[in-house]
Amino acid sequence: MGRERRKREKGRAFVEHVISVTLENKSGALSRVAGLFSGRGFNIESLSVAPTLDPSVSMMTVVTNGDERIIEQILKQLNKIIDVIKVVDLNESDAVSRESALIKVHARAEDRAEALRIADIFRANVIDSSPTSYTIEVTGDVQKIHAIIQLLQPLGIKEIVRTGRIAIAREPVRTVAAQSRPLAKAN
Amino acid sequence: MGRERRKREKGRAFVEHVISVTLENKSGALSRVAGLFSGRGFNIESLSVAPTLDPSVSMMTVVTNGDERIIEQILKQLNKIIDVIKVVDLNESDAVSRESALIKVHARAEDRAEALRIADIFRANVIDSSPTSYTIEVTGDVQKIHAIIQLLQPLGIKEIVRTGRIAIAREPVRTVAAQSRPLAKAN
Repeated sequence: MGRERRKREKGRAFVEHVISVTLENKSGALSRVAGLFSGRGFNIESLSVAPTLDPSVSMMTVVTNGDERIIEQILKQLNKIIDVIKVVDLNESDAVSRESALIKVHARAEDRAEALRIADIFRANVIDSSPTSYTIEVTGDVQKIHAIIQLLQPLGIKEIVRTGRIAIAREPVRTVAAQSRPLAKAN
Repeated sequence: MGRERRKREKGRAFVEHVISVTLENKSGALSRVAGLFSGRGFNIESLSVAPTLDPSVSMMTVVTNGDERIIEQILKQLNKIIDVIKVVDLNESDAVSRESALIKVHARAEDRAEALRIADIFRANVIDSSPTSYTIEVTGDVQKIHAIIQLLQPLGIKEIVRTGRIAIAREPVRTVAAQSRPLAKAN
């Protein structure tokens, strides 16, 4: 009984899920997926869709949240969509996820060194600069993106564009740490 | 007449456009945008949507293509959607765009050095490794992503997930080159 109750309580907890959807590259496919989420009131935290090596197939990554019952519903309904080829809940396996952001910050003379220091710490790149602003490109997991945004906010963020998260399942046997590791020397 | 004809011919050329759409973070908003594209047969090359600093507002980047008339239609129709706050055709201004990809490649013993060399050239990171594969994370403009994919293809690509492009308008006066410039030392 107590166990059953814990299970139900656990089932009710809202958890973020990253779902990867392989689908036909047809104009109606995205519309059907988006319609499923809005029609049933499922939440979309972020969504990215882009072509694969096969131009007839697209790969979509949706970040959503819900309790176990909701996520089960989402997976079931996605599988029913005619254009959907494959649905994978990446929370079910060990996965690695990344996101990119372009952040345009105010960079007055007195703040420029600090903006560059922050970019440096996060191994971010300044990809555009004007006398009053820097545009910074950063890629990493969601914690890293949140952290750099928090640090840059005191300088004044003018604009921010994010890709939304993409993720890929890890291979069963790992020989390299999960941490992003630079392979390249600065050049 | 000749001028008019050239104009019409130019107008008919299909050009890729990156459109940035600021919209209310409501469940129906994405569905309405996707429905507009599919309903009118407009093409979506890639689409990314993610939250902004204001949780009630999302920012979407759509890459589409069409002749002048089609793009004009897309912009007009997007502006008519009730949840849409702002539409910017980034082709109208000088913009900088980025995309991320996670690429899982076969990495047999004899190919591992070559895979690392390619990652090195593109300042990409190996973020997961198994005895038979590497997962490589790369961020850059669309040409860079295409180039690394082409170089990795002979090794055998097992899986690829892309974010789709995001873009931000450049500030009028630039003091740094457009080229992505690493600020960080390897650490």
